[in-house]
Amino acid sequence: MSKQRLIIDMDDVMADTGGAIIDLYNKHFKTSYQKSDLLEQDIWNEELKANYVDELRSKLHEPGFFRNLSVMTGAKEVIKELHEKYDLFVVSAAMEFPNSLKEKSEWLDEHFPYIHWKNRVLCGDKSIIKGDIMIDDHDKNLSVFKGQCLLFHAMHNHKLEWYQRVKSWKDVAVELL
Amino acid sequence: MSKQRLIIDMDDVMADTGGAIIDLYNKHFKTSYQKSDLLEQDIWNEELKANYVDELRSKLHEPGFFRNLSVMTGAKEVIKELHEKYDLFVVSAAMEFPNSLKEKSEWLDEHFPYIHWKNRVLCGDKSIIKGDIMIDDHDKNLSVFKGQCLLFHAMHNHKLEWYQRVKSWKDVAVELL
Repeated sequence: MSKQRLIIDMDDVMADTGGAIIDLYNKHFKTSYQKSDLLEQDIWNEELKANYVDELRSKLHEPGFFRNLSVMTGAKEVIKELHEKYDLFVVSAAMEFPNSLKEKSEWLDEHFPYIHWKNRVLCGDKSIIKGDIMIDDHDKNLSVFKGQCLLFHAMHNHKLEWYQRVKSWKDVAVELL
Repeated sequence: MSKQRLIIDMDDVMADTGGAIIDLYNKHFKTSYQKSDLLEQDIWNEELKANYVDELRSKLHEPGFFRNLSVMTGAKEVIKELHEKYDLFVVSAAMEFPNSLKEKSEWLDEHFPYIHWKNRVLCGDKSIIKGDIMIDDHDKNLSVFKGQCLLFHAMHNHKLEWYQRVKSWKDVAVELL
């Protein structure tokens, strides 16, 4: 029997993009939020801080942002095992950020060198992707996927209720290994 | 009724990659081949010239190669019309060439600015792509696609017989517009 195809997202699933954004926010506003602080409060809603969104967005376009992201806790160990069991593809909606394209390739080379370039996809709209299982943190990606969906826990999705949620890579291991 | 999803390849379909490779070859060997000369003879088979393949491959990795490709004859006009009629995606197997990723994004911005970043995909193996119609010059991409296949004529596929062949963008227009 051929392996099931497993589609894994990068930002906020493999890479700690949210953590890097909070670091930028803290630096700008001289605050000291942690990701866990932000599940029940939306720091972006206040008018003063909303003015920062454009500046923050421009930082995501700057060279280096995506190249230097940390790996999410547990991702290295669990993805290594998933790679043995599944036909594993990394699929990132990266086309909005042209500087990120090569950086994401280099980031994967550094942290996940065993994921072949043939198994990497950089796209815009994930409705073009087919597979058996998708791990993603966004409703817009999971809602257009025809297979099994696992919602990777993130501060921007903590109110979403209609997907099976995985809180960590440990949860993913329990579910898929 | 929703539009059919049309998947279009870049190299040797939208962009004249083969022409640029022949230019490099001619410069190296002081020859003056044209693409049309090469349908019935394989210039790569001779031992002397085969030694050039590695050097040529390294040139494809150099910055600028993909950024400066010419647009294939007729592509601009026909793709503009296809873009109106279909849910059009550009899908390029580019991950082998990390320098090409941003260049391909910029090349599309220059020549096909109306194709939104959401409708662009850079991947390795196209078996992950789903859609209704695919235009591609490679058997390996068409053979794993479930929809209608159009083989775009190229010197490396002129002996392939089991696909509907389109010889030019004019042929594509006749078939799809």
